[in-house]
Amino acid sequence: MMRSSDQQVLRKATPVEQGNPADDQRMFRRCLSQYGTGVAIVTTADGASRFAVTVNSFSSLSLDPPLLLWSIDRKSRSFDAFSSCEHFAVNILSSEQIELSRHFSSKITDKFADVDWAPGRFGSPLLSGCIARFECSAEARHDGGDHMILIGRVQQLERFEGMPLIFSQGQYSIPLEHPDAPGEPAAIAAEQPNTLANNVLQMIFNAHHALSEAFDEHRRAEGVSIAVARVLATVHGHPGIKVDAVAGQTYLGQRDAEDAVAELAQKSLLVHSVDGGLRLTPSGAALRESIGERWLAFQNAQLESIPPADISVLMRTLKRLIEQTTQERTATEAVSGE
Amino acid sequence: MMRSSDQQVLRKATPVEQGNPADDQRMFRRCLSQYGTGVAIVTTADGASRFAVTVNSFSSLSLDPPLLLWSIDRKSRSFDAFSSCEHFAVNILSSEQIELSRHFSSKITDKFADVDWAPGRFGSPLLSGCIARFECSAEARHDGGDHMILIGRVQQLERFEGMPLIFSQGQYSIPLEHPDAPGEPAAIAAEQPNTLANNVLQMIFNAHHALSEAFDEHRRAEGVSIAVARVLATVHGHPGIKVDAVAGQTYLGQRDAEDAVAELAQKSLLVHSVDGGLRLTPSGAALRESIGERWLAFQNAQLESIPPADISVLMRTLKRLIEQTTQERTATEAVSGE
Repeated sequence: MMRSSDQQVLRKATPVEQGNPADDQRMFRRCLSQYGTGVAIVTTADGASRFAVTVNSFSSLSLDPPLLLWSIDRKSRSFDAFSSCEHFAVNILSSEQIELSRHFSSKITDKFADVDWAPGRFGSPLLSGCIARFECSAEARHDGGDHMILIGRVQQLERFEGMPLIFSQGQYSIPLEHPDAPGEPAAIAAEQPNTLANNVLQMIFNAHHALSEAFDEHRRAEGVSIAVARVLATVHGHPGIKVDAVAGQTYLGQRDAEDAVAELAQKSLLVHSVDGGLRLTPSGAALRESIGERWLAFQNAQLESIPPADISVLMRTLKRLIEQTTQERTATEAVSGE
Repeated sequence: MMRSSDQQVLRKATPVEQGNPADDQRMFRRCLSQYGTGVAIVTTADGASRFAVTVNSFSSLSLDPPLLLWSIDRKSRSFDAFSSCEHFAVNILSSEQIELSRHFSSKITDKFADVDWAPGRFGSPLLSGCIARFECSAEARHDGGDHMILIGRVQQLERFEGMPLIFSQGQYSIPLEHPDAPGEPAAIAAEQPNTLANNVLQMIFNAHHALSEAFDEHRRAEGVSIAVARVLATVHGHPGIKVDAVAGQTYLGQRDAEDAVAELAQKSLLVHSVDGGLRLTPSGAALRESIGERWLAFQNAQLESIPPADISVLMRTLKRLIEQTTQERTATEAVSGE
């Protein structure tokens, strides 16, 4: 499935957009989000008051001394707390904590009320379920335009099992290991080519990758961004949905969801009703239907040449594999959770 | 496939490791790599000399003014160039540029000789095939322990199509969109439940996710880290391989591969031969075989209850889907590449 590097270069030679970021902040943000990041919640405490911000500006900085950095928006309601605190904690989110990320990005007043946490040794809240936690003393602060850079000296850390949550191109994602790496299912299969079990699993993995890639290229060829397609589908499925709820339904970042809503409103594809809810216009509904039909046609085309009897065996077998995998795991967890 | 949050908390309550990072740099590095990042190559030029470093310390900083930051190891051979340059360019790598990432992390003298690049408007090399490129003036520099922080003011940017390369938990990865997001195959299927095409594709996607997750939990339960399993498999498959080549074969970061080699050597599971190559010891070979057998037993167990005739139809059908997807794409590219 590798393409020749020549074709690669040709396909990518033309920028989707370019310019001076001072002229267009949204363009700058779209370009920045080409760099994938994890998601961290930074916390601090001041007496009985607790503060938290969700950031994707975390970065490792120095091993010796052990330093890390992140930056905070000067407009953040927690800016004063973080600009003067002596300690803070960085909580790295797992792939299962999208909800927690949203919760701490929201405008809820007491964000710690419904969350499982405990104070660390310097008082900063440590959140449960994270895959790493760093308790830091504030080492230095630097000006960073509309943000301030905070450097922390790590005093204590913890690492937990789990996969990281990734934020990439405006969407929450999970990292997929390279399937050809040694020790991964496809590579084990290649090593033992005559083993039926390996061949079947490898085939499922490969089919998934081939279909994902074909689907993605098809969408790009249609010129519809993922954000726009998701917002259209969501507003269609939930007419009257509030702007604030769109990000949650679409698995998009708050700003990316808002940008897509603004783009669709500007093109008269959706409207803000008097009750503050979003609704598709007739042309928005038509675009959404046309996208849906194209995806469906694409998917039907994939199956056109397969005999119906084979499809029914395929369905039955995959269903069985999924069911037994899920059952096994539930059984294991029930035991380990005792 | 969601677990109850109670089980979640129980499973994650105990850290894999914890402590003061000043006592154990490798532990600190493992904790830091729980935060996924993209991969960027930063370049600059000084007359006819060109410099480049591969980093995962990139971060967005400010929208107004448009600032970004990254940090450079004070021990880097390019440190002097970057500590005095007036301009630099940040090139964000796509998921198809693992090789380029390695190339610029390697010790090759003229790294630009075999690479497709062109000078930007301020002279810094811009690399082909990247998904975003930022041409910056050096705005400020700050001390960061064993690194130096560089802040760039973005003067010009470009965005290209493509998926980002992700570096997470020491491995190169690609971001997988949340399958339940609206507009994704599984969600389209849920919206149109009576459409056969959607059901089949959804089933393949779900089977892949269920098997991946089961496989991953199985590996964790065995207590073998991904890095160690991959290095064992690689040295077994390539006896005499040099340490420098292990990272490339395992899709691990250079340091993570070196750490795994060091861990295996310390446990007498592999040895450095007199020719500088790596070889498994008898106990290393035995561990590798035992891991392989466990994976195989796991995979066989998944298929145990499926009738052989169904497996053969499953194989045939998936193979056909993969082949036609790949053929279609090759045909499309041949046209668009003209």
